[in-house]
Amino acid sequence: MMPERDLQYLTELAAQLRVDSVRAAAEAGSGHPTSSMSAADLMAVLFACHLHYDFENPDNPANDHLIFSKGHASPLLYALFKAAGVVDDKELLTFRRRGSRLEGHPTPRLPWVDVATGSLGQGLPVGVGVAMAGRLERMPYRVWVLCGDSELAEGSIWEAAEHAGCEGLANLTAIVDVNRLGQRGPTRHGWDTGAYARRFGAFGWHTIEIDGHDPGQIDYALNDARNTRRRPTVILAKTRKGEGALEVENREGAHGKPLKEPDKAVDELGGRRDLRVEVHKPEAPAAPYRFESRPMSLPAYKVGDKAATRTAFGEALAALGAARGDVLALDGEVADSTKAEAFGKEFPERFFEMYIAEQQLVAAAVGLQVRGWKPYAATFAAFLTRAYDFIRMAGVSRASIRLVGSHAGVAIGEDGPSQMGLEDLAMLRAVYGSTVLYPCDANQAAALTAELADVEGVSYLRTTRGETPVIYPPDERFPVGGSRVLRHSPDDRATIVAAGVTVHEALAAADELRGAGIPVGVIDLYSVKPVDTAALVEAATTTGNLITVEDHRLEGGLGDAVMDAVSELGPRVVKLAVTGLPGSATPEEQLADAGIDRHAIAEAVKRLL
Amino acid sequence: MMPERDLQYLTELAAQLRVDSVRAAAEAGSGHPTSSMSAADLMAVLFACHLHYDFENPDNPANDHLIFSKGHASPLLYALFKAAGVVDDKELLTFRRRGSRLEGHPTPRLPWVDVATGSLGQGLPVGVGVAMAGRLERMPYRVWVLCGDSELAEGSIWEAAEHAGCEGLANLTAIVDVNRLGQRGPTRHGWDTGAYARRFGAFGWHTIEIDGHDPGQIDYALNDARNTRRRPTVILAKTRKGEGALEVENREGAHGKPLKEPDKAVDELGGRRDLRVEVHKPEAPAAPYRFESRPMSLPAYKVGDKAATRTAFGEALAALGAARGDVLALDGEVADSTKAEAFGKEFPERFFEMYIAEQQLVAAAVGLQVRGWKPYAATFAAFLTRAYDFIRMAGVSRASIRLVGSHAGVAIGEDGPSQMGLEDLAMLRAVYGSTVLYPCDANQAAALTAELADVEGVSYLRTTRGETPVIYPPDERFPVGGSRVLRHSPDDRATIVAAGVTVHEALAAADELRGAGIPVGVIDLYSVKPVDTAALVEAATTTGNLITVEDHRLEGGLGDAVMDAVSELGPRVVKLAVTGLPGSATPEEQLADAGIDRHAIAEAVKRLL
Repeated sequence: MMPERDLQYLTELAAQLRVDSVRAAAEAGSGHPTSSMSAADLMAVLFACHLHYDFENPDNPANDHLIFSKGHASPLLYALFKAAGVVDDKELLTFRRRGSRLEGHPTPRLPWVDVATGSLGQGLPVGVGVAMAGRLERMPYRVWVLCGDSELAEGSIWEAAEHAGCEGLANLTAIVDVNRLGQRGPTRHGWDTGAYARRFGAFGWHTIEIDGHDPGQIDYALNDARNTRRRPTVILAKTRKGEGALEVENREGAHGKPLKEPDKAVDELGGRRDLRVEVHKPEAPAAPYRFESRPMSLPAYKVGDKAATRTAFGEALAALGAARGDVLALDGEVADSTKAEAFGKEFPERFFEMYIAEQQLVAAAVGLQVRGWKPYAATFAAFLTRAYDFIRMAGVSRASIRLVGSHAGVAIGEDGPSQMGLEDLAMLRAVYGSTVLYPCDANQAAALTAELADVEGVSYLRTTRGETPVIYPPDERFPVGGSRVLRHSPDDRATIVAAGVTVHEALAAADELRGAGIPVGVIDLYSVKPVDTAALVEAATTTGNLITVEDHRLEGGLGDAVMDAVSELGPRVVKLAVTGLPGSATPEEQLADAGIDRHAIAEAVKRLL
Repeated sequence: MMPERDLQYLTELAAQLRVDSVRAAAEAGSGHPTSSMSAADLMAVLFACHLHYDFENPDNPANDHLIFSKGHASPLLYALFKAAGVVDDKELLTFRRRGSRLEGHPTPRLPWVDVATGSLGQGLPVGVGVAMAGRLERMPYRVWVLCGDSELAEGSIWEAAEHAGCEGLANLTAIVDVNRLGQRGPTRHGWDTGAYARRFGAFGWHTIEIDGHDPGQIDYALNDARNTRRRPTVILAKTRKGEGALEVENREGAHGKPLKEPDKAVDELGGRRDLRVEVHKPEAPAAPYRFESRPMSLPAYKVGDKAATRTAFGEALAALGAARGDVLALDGEVADSTKAEAFGKEFPERFFEMYIAEQQLVAAAVGLQVRGWKPYAATFAAFLTRAYDFIRMAGVSRASIRLVGSHAGVAIGEDGPSQMGLEDLAMLRAVYGSTVLYPCDANQAAALTAELADVEGVSYLRTTRGETPVIYPPDERFPVGGSRVLRHSPDDRATIVAAGVTVHEALAAADELRGAGIPVGVIDLYSVKPVDTAALVEAATTTGNLITVEDHRLEGGLGDAVMDAVSELGPRVVKLAVTGLPGSATPEEQLADAGIDRHAIAEAVKRLL
């Protein structure tokens, strides 16, 4: 039993957190005070009794990790930071103002926030990744994730439940604030914490059901979670939304808005306080375990041979794994296709089988990079669409993750449209701060695979299923943002811009056109974002006619990247891309049917001129 | 007990399905025979004894629905169609050939296929939608979904399990082919059907574990499923991948490729057969229940007033619901924000609360339109990214669904980047056959909401959180593919192209510029895809200078749509769009910070000229 004095302190602290949540939202004129108030007791006990965190040194590798999966409870998080002494009252009241670090939903602009949340159902999957990192680096830190009950409807939560449950991530605790009210009304299960317990239990979790406003029960549950071995724990805490203020307590229609009478609520809650919470610092930090590094020797492919860029990626990743102990690989149960298996065979400890759960695949990568690891997450390009919201939020988090999408485009052949990555360039280009690369040969793919290790933000490597001719010698560098001029003469009447498989089609078309007396240039635009504006401007200026050709939909891909780079110059641009709905056919037939093969390119050039 | 004669027939039929799967893949030189062989007994018994389907009339509303969620088992599906007499042996051997209806993964090019599958984890959620339709239209048909065990790792499966379990969709049966082998190796749970049963049981399903190669057990389970009330049923069938052919039976490394010695396997399986299966036809079709229709009266907003386009959408949807009994609305637990609640209040029977499960939200819409309903699925634009793979596959299915994304762009203000739809135009434009609309005022939003009801394919309406001035009179029509010229003079030196909130910024900028002696045109490009090429070409030709401005990322949105339309003409185009990472701020501050407000537009025009 917790001493009465401690219980009283915790109750007071929770009241302060509620008061400050109400005040911050009132001052901002928006925000989610009621969603904060339901979880205040849970977080007060966590901060005062169980969290180990060195607020003076957020980079202390022994720090616990706290993720607000219900990111809209940001007023509570900021009130906690105030109680911990790292945010002052003046800053608290800048909540949601232009320029404030205290954004509507938490982002890593705050040094104590690992990842941006606010898109529900993401914090727990990312927490799984941080917990995986803890196991990998043999650190005793714990990962605490505050979830809402509404967000348990997201499938991504159950991908996380499955991974954590099966892997026995005992360093992970989900604290679910079961306040029974979603945004527009009651949740599906209301206060039936048993419904959630049955589900988490079936997925292998230790489950505890408590009254989320009883500090003693909360303390017991958090202790239980810390002492549970071989299983993650979920604490299902029955709470009342808006707890403590009659105006909003357990009422519908009080989501996501400030209280009408905040002063009255503050009075009800006992007025302002200025309690401090002394968060335990972690034990003197042990150094996180790191894997050894050796000199790198990238695979080399002979010019004139044929090899698939996906194979080169796999072999390069294995070489990179030898050279760098911080490189990891994650697989969406297709490692034999993406060729990430080459890494898995060499470095099983650093290879994570995430099965067919692409959201958790990406979220795990985000969680692992929180601790400085360099994850490469690979699946079919088409199936990365499954994780778009996670990729988008990784951009907001400024997370450095590397995504690899194989089986790009119609060139995969017979498998048909469900397996073709045709929207991936559009999807990845639109992500904040992203890098998008698309190699055309094996040596380039290997070089770019290595290059990505130190690229910041969300980066993407697009690979091809079939073999393509090796056209570059080994050991050449292909910097991000660069391109290669493959054909060029002063007489060029147009320039063909291509990447990946279409580079080879473009070269064949250029040769055919030259034979017909029409010299054209060819640019390999392997860096689709950032794009080599200088080279494109040069081509646009000298030939005035650009033909872009890509194995991707017409919208948002390489052609748009090229147009964007030269739009203010006003050259004529013809875009060749996939516009129809492919069926099954051989790769060659597919390229022809889509109008992106050598003949289609040559025709387009002739038509343009 | 089933008579011995029937058991023997079923065994023979299953052997034929295996033989034909082996033959089809062998002839194609690719495909998934082993994934077909494991499920052959399950499907033989289903077709012979339990499916009710009129193959002569695929549109018979009383037909059961069969969805191969494990779409890669297409050889089995086509072998079934052959046994049912609707595909002949010659066509079977066109599997995966150019032009064949028998694609690598099933698509609705075949009249007996409702939706395209092949991206795992989608068939069951779509099946939930078809089962919802059955309940809505009071038809006794059943929905049978063949799932793989690997795909149970997808979160979308658990969104489906939750919805079907909580709604008690007893007309839905999932048949899981637990063959223990995924693409690259063993699944997480192997043959532990209990692991899956615990999970489905926790989500409220009736569960049956059987030997998936025993026709008697299969028959018993399918009967049990048909007779179970108030709960969906999952049949967890332990099977062996490649069953029946020693070369591949229960072996790793035999996924997704034809057998090396197909003739030998055919011999092992007892050789070719030409059995027919007499699939029961459904009872004489009752007419599906349809809701009544009344004359439509769209809401009208007064020019000069202010109203949010999201509000106009909600009110128009309610009006449309009165006018058309086939219109439905689905909500991702944000109906008070998207304003779809206006429909829900009027037509609770046709309003579906899908909670925060966007994949199931979209999948349910796809399933409902299989039966001819006109679903509108609404959530925040940002959160549609969660369902991108489902939207992509809806395109492949040529499904007619209407998606509505509210809270577009930085203009939402304080909530910050996690809630801002900034990639949605790029994402939706890249979908095959999509329509993308973005109204700027309430009357336009209302008109476009109604317009969408008869648009085929995936369509998207983007709405704005804040109020915008009403600039169009009520009752005007805004056809898909159109635009409106809002400012135009023969002296225009440039044309500003905008949509949504930026239309109002563009108008203000144009007025300011005119005051400064710089006349410019303004186009409201409410139809972002298809785009009004004629109007844009006209503007590009007459002024030679285009400025596009959009509350969306630079990549893949309105600016790219404009450039694409005029690229072969070569005008100068300046694109204004969101390039940085927004924080919290007021809507006005956000537009200014992103460089897409009236001042930024005016500056850009001056700079360009």
